[in-house]
Amino acid sequence: MSCLNTSPKTRAESRYPLDTVDFFTVLPPDKLKKLHEEGRTSTYTKGQILFTQDDPAEWFYMIESGWVKLFRETLDGNEVILDVMPHGFLFGETSMFEKNAHPYGAEIVENATLTSYPISILKEYIEAQPELALSLLQHISNKNNLKDREIEHRTVMKAPQRIGCFLLRLCKVKQPAPIILHLPYDKTLIASRLGMQPETFSRALSRLQEDTGIKVRGATVEITNLGNLITYTCTACSNVFPCDD
Amino acid sequence: MSCLNTSPKTRAESRYPLDTVDFFTVLPPDKLKKLHEEGRTSTYTKGQILFTQDDPAEWFYMIESGWVKLFRETLDGNEVILDVMPHGFLFGETSMFEKNAHPYGAEIVENATLTSYPISILKEYIEAQPELALSLLQHISNKNNLKDREIEHRTVMKAPQRIGCFLLRLCKVKQPAPIILHLPYDKTLIASRLGMQPETFSRALSRLQEDTGIKVRGATVEITNLGNLITYTCTACSNVFPCDD
Repeated sequence: MSCLNTSPKTRAESRYPLDTVDFFTVLPPDKLKKLHEEGRTSTYTKGQILFTQDDPAEWFYMIESGWVKLFRETLDGNEVILDVMPHGFLFGETSMFEKNAHPYGAEIVENATLTSYPISILKEYIEAQPELALSLLQHISNKNNLKDREIEHRTVMKAPQRIGCFLLRLCKVKQPAPIILHLPYDKTLIASRLGMQPETFSRALSRLQEDTGIKVRGATVEITNLGNLITYTCTACSNVFPCDD
Repeated sequence: MSCLNTSPKTRAESRYPLDTVDFFTVLPPDKLKKLHEEGRTSTYTKGQILFTQDDPAEWFYMIESGWVKLFRETLDGNEVILDVMPHGFLFGETSMFEKNAHPYGAEIVENATLTSYPISILKEYIEAQPELALSLLQHISNKNNLKDREIEHRTVMKAPQRIGCFLLRLCKVKQPAPIILHLPYDKTLIASRLGMQPETFSRALSRLQEDTGIKVRGATVEITNLGNLITYTCTACSNVFPCDD
């Protein structure tokens, strides 16, 4: 793991509290505190590889700021993006159940601050406290569900609808119209995240604007009629808006 | 749940032993026996719907014989197949972590015998025995990994390669050449399972035969050079043959 600046245990005050993570809420305060204190906060620059697929899983990470992508590489050199995640998200926390190796690589896609926590402590806690195992089961099942939805979308949704879904996940339900969104990272990366070639993404984005009346200027998206976008997108999904996952 | 013939607790001797399931191996014999005795074995005909998405999850199922598909329906009526499973497979066993509702529907695709087991007992066991929760975590993580691989394949593999992967998963590693396989269910269903239109599947299957020398006659597949098929298919994957998942 290479990083610009590692300051173990010195920046604990600026970290995301671990009890913001769903499955940690069952831990008693002293255990949370111990884990928190074991964190090492470091900064990383865009393009840095944190680890690659099959690397031993010794740490899990909280994204304090910036963006991280999880990816795999095929034998013939193609990259597949499994996720792109912002601050407040964890990764690597389930790798201990994957033969203690990360089932994906992780790369910094926007300058980031991450806190790494030792997986060994998490293991200890799980063995000592069955409720933590149960809430982790819930957490992993939720991830499972999201992946099923992704497979579903890649099977039946048209490209403009998949972009529509990406945008709807950025909307707050009760935002007054017009809704102004800022794309969280660049369009090439969004295309890869959605498993599309850049040209397909570009054509699909034009089509989405024609069909739903949304307007995209650079990284800014204006949605004047949210209902239009929901009808256009979510009728091709097995879930109703807003998604509960 | 509708079925042709329900014979609760009377056919226990002909059932799959539960300790053939990875995560049950940690259960002591008396608990396995109790669960086994609570099973209800019934027969079902092709086309029967066992439950639909969001139905309350009260039972999990072992497939004793036949085939079952797990599916979702989109609001505009498209069906997405999440899995098609043969004998020896479980389903519904993780639905208790999905708000106690099945996150998919289940339909019989070839006349089947299933044993249903009450989820309530599984819950009881998990709460009483932390090792079971841990081995379930491993089980669900493995499922997660398979879904990541599915997303990967749908992103970077060409249709003939995805059919190649489907066939390779039916091969035993040390089978002598030529390998003769029988497609486990009809081609239309295989196409849906792979998220392809029937015409795409048909074109891709012809292409796969031309490119790798395999021969398909009806439901019989002859593979004279397994290495060819592996090279053609697995170079587009992040895993090497044979898959460990």
